[in-house]
Amino acid sequence: MKLTATVFLATIATTTIAIATALPASAQTSATAAPGPAAPVIEDFKPSSVNQPGQQYPQVNSQGYARFRVVAPDAKAVKVSLGLGGRGGTVLAKDADGAWTGTSEGPLDEGFHYYHLTVDGGTFNDPGTLNFYGSTRWESSIEIPAKDADFYALKNVPHGRVEQVLFASPSTGTQRRAFVYTPPGYDKAGSTRYPVLYLQHGWGEDETAWANQGHANLIMDNLIATGKARPFIIVMTYGMTNDIKPGSPGGLASFNIKPFQTVLVDELIPYVDSQYRTLADQRHRAMAGLSMGGFETKLIVPANLDKFAYMGLLSGGSVSVEDVDKTPGYRDKLKLTFVSFGSRELEGGRSGPPGGPPVDPRANAEAIKKAGIKSAFYVSPNTAHEFLTWRRSLLQFAPMLFRD
Amino acid sequence: MKLTATVFLATIATTTIAIATALPASAQTSATAAPGPAAPVIEDFKPSSVNQPGQQYPQVNSQGYARFRVVAPDAKAVKVSLGLGGRGGTVLAKDADGAWTGTSEGPLDEGFHYYHLTVDGGTFNDPGTLNFYGSTRWESSIEIPAKDADFYALKNVPHGRVEQVLFASPSTGTQRRAFVYTPPGYDKAGSTRYPVLYLQHGWGEDETAWANQGHANLIMDNLIATGKARPFIIVMTYGMTNDIKPGSPGGLASFNIKPFQTVLVDELIPYVDSQYRTLADQRHRAMAGLSMGGFETKLIVPANLDKFAYMGLLSGGSVSVEDVDKTPGYRDKLKLTFVSFGSRELEGGRSGPPGGPPVDPRANAEAIKKAGIKSAFYVSPNTAHEFLTWRRSLLQFAPMLFRD
Repeated sequence: MKLTATVFLATIATTTIAIATALPASAQTSATAAPGPAAPVIEDFKPSSVNQPGQQYPQVNSQGYARFRVVAPDAKAVKVSLGLGGRGGTVLAKDADGAWTGTSEGPLDEGFHYYHLTVDGGTFNDPGTLNFYGSTRWESSIEIPAKDADFYALKNVPHGRVEQVLFASPSTGTQRRAFVYTPPGYDKAGSTRYPVLYLQHGWGEDETAWANQGHANLIMDNLIATGKARPFIIVMTYGMTNDIKPGSPGGLASFNIKPFQTVLVDELIPYVDSQYRTLADQRHRAMAGLSMGGFETKLIVPANLDKFAYMGLLSGGSVSVEDVDKTPGYRDKLKLTFVSFGSRELEGGRSGPPGGPPVDPRANAEAIKKAGIKSAFYVSPNTAHEFLTWRRSLLQFAPMLFRD
Repeated sequence: MKLTATVFLATIATTTIAIATALPASAQTSATAAPGPAAPVIEDFKPSSVNQPGQQYPQVNSQGYARFRVVAPDAKAVKVSLGLGGRGGTVLAKDADGAWTGTSEGPLDEGFHYYHLTVDGGTFNDPGTLNFYGSTRWESSIEIPAKDADFYALKNVPHGRVEQVLFASPSTGTQRRAFVYTPPGYDKAGSTRYPVLYLQHGWGEDETAWANQGHANLIMDNLIATGKARPFIIVMTYGMTNDIKPGSPGGLASFNIKPFQTVLVDELIPYVDSQYRTLADQRHRAMAGLSMGGFETKLIVPANLDKFAYMGLLSGGSVSVEDVDKTPGYRDKLKLTFVSFGSRELEGGRSGPPGGPPVDPRANAEAIKKAGIKSAFYVSPNTAHEFLTWRRSLLQFAPMLFRD
């Protein structure tokens, strides 16, 4: 099921018209004075789905506008880091009752967005929202409901588990954490063994991201319930075991993969294969990652073709014919090279590691396909370097895995 | 291993003297001007163990003082809700560099404390700390290292898992979450079956509390590694499925247990028994809870003596001879009545549900013991209605379970 931009726009338009007609004109007046957006702001705001229990703000309307409300009666200035590009976020204004409120200047992209508040010069989370680990800290976030949100919804279907395991890592001298998704029925399946996908988060995130922000477990539950994906195990661990510092020269292009590769390949994989009923061979093992996790994947998989048969790069680089040609065994051993991006990441026609040469992932994808490499390329419509891109990418990627 | 107050005080004194001698006098001057505490504040502050990665504040010193630092250069007033009783917390003062800093007026009790900031009249979390769900919101917290912290430390021993499961609840029309601790080796133990403890959080907390704040998994890992407890499964789910509202008249004493009892007894227990290799009979099933979870336990277990053989009330009420006498089967069917409190909860010699009649848990415990009821009573030294009381209570309780 390839999702197209056309379907989304039609759905948004329909919803907008239906609700606007039902509302009194007075509910739409505030937007006419607002700069920027042409369409009036529709007053059908509801609490965001990732608010803390019982919290009414932030809210989202059917057009994708976000409205914030923060109580800080003695503050001088309150700002939200989220808003339209180039305007530095949403500046809140103080109400008569001492609460700071404001609405984003335009609709936000569908999906999950991190943000934080600036209150009198200090950085705080919005007390209304749940927190998610990103940018090396637990951040506030808001969810703009996506038209295709059903694929990651919590439904009344058999559910797999998300299991926290702690494993010994001699190379780092630590007990490390991983989360392991086991598919529905795993515990009752007797002697059945399962393939494994190692799935990495991005820079500044951690091993909680794919389940909390990504809903990887619900995406898999729903795919398995409808027979669209083969049941497999997913393992998620902390990938910042490298030398990257924010803003360091060279950035992602220059980091040393060795410490993380040692944890993943020499410590975690043997642990998982000893503790879970895995199919512990190359053709039943995959690795994928988003952003920095994609860069890690692209460094680890081609260097370990005896261990991995599938590779997924989600907003984390692409693969050129040169990449393939310089890697002995790539053509024969890798059953799938999956590359994906959000459409907004490709605006301007280029992408690539910060500081590196420009890369056109679409041209790369077409070239390796033409060269006979088993590959797939996916673009998430109207999303940027954010989690809806990666949820959709997993939806595309998972059904392609372990089919041989 | 019963912990005594004497041991703690001796250890604190020793540590204090050793470090004070090693420090230059200048490092101690700030405390001499401070009101209240007699001993000088020792300048050996270190980041709290529950800070976010890389965050230097809040800090704790060897005496148990907490020091806070919050950046908000344009704020008028910043306060921390944590401090000495009756003084309303710790008021921070602005440094020359725009950061608000302050030290608690005296040493805090050892263990885990929730808190939040008040910044210009608004309630925010301290961006330095991890968040834990309490008071119906994700709160900041600080950990004052306990002298006996080793029993819940993350060690290089075999670790059990903490597994998130999602189960269907027809009575509430929801898919509900529980966390399940499985002991080390569970997955490789073939056909071995295990007893189960249902373990409940307190008011305003949720199913994450016993693993996140309570370290129940690490306590069990360490007890099992040293052979002090029989390996068993622990199940933790959300217990606020009742009519309690903060400040409602009657409070805990008047709530309706039926909705939660239905979820636990009619939905969750059958789910767990069908999905895990449990010993699914009365004598291999226990229930315990802290605070409100203890009240729930005391309502559910005596009314379901065909299902539970062990009961634990942790700062959540006590059991009198009258309670026993009015419950048919209590004496024969219940193998253990475990009651515990923090010593500070018993200061003044009474305890009991808010609004209810005064109760002396110690007298109750002595009376039921004298009346021949299989029971145990534990008091955690120098702790209040907080998580160190409950970590220590689990340490005492777990080895007593499933011994027949």
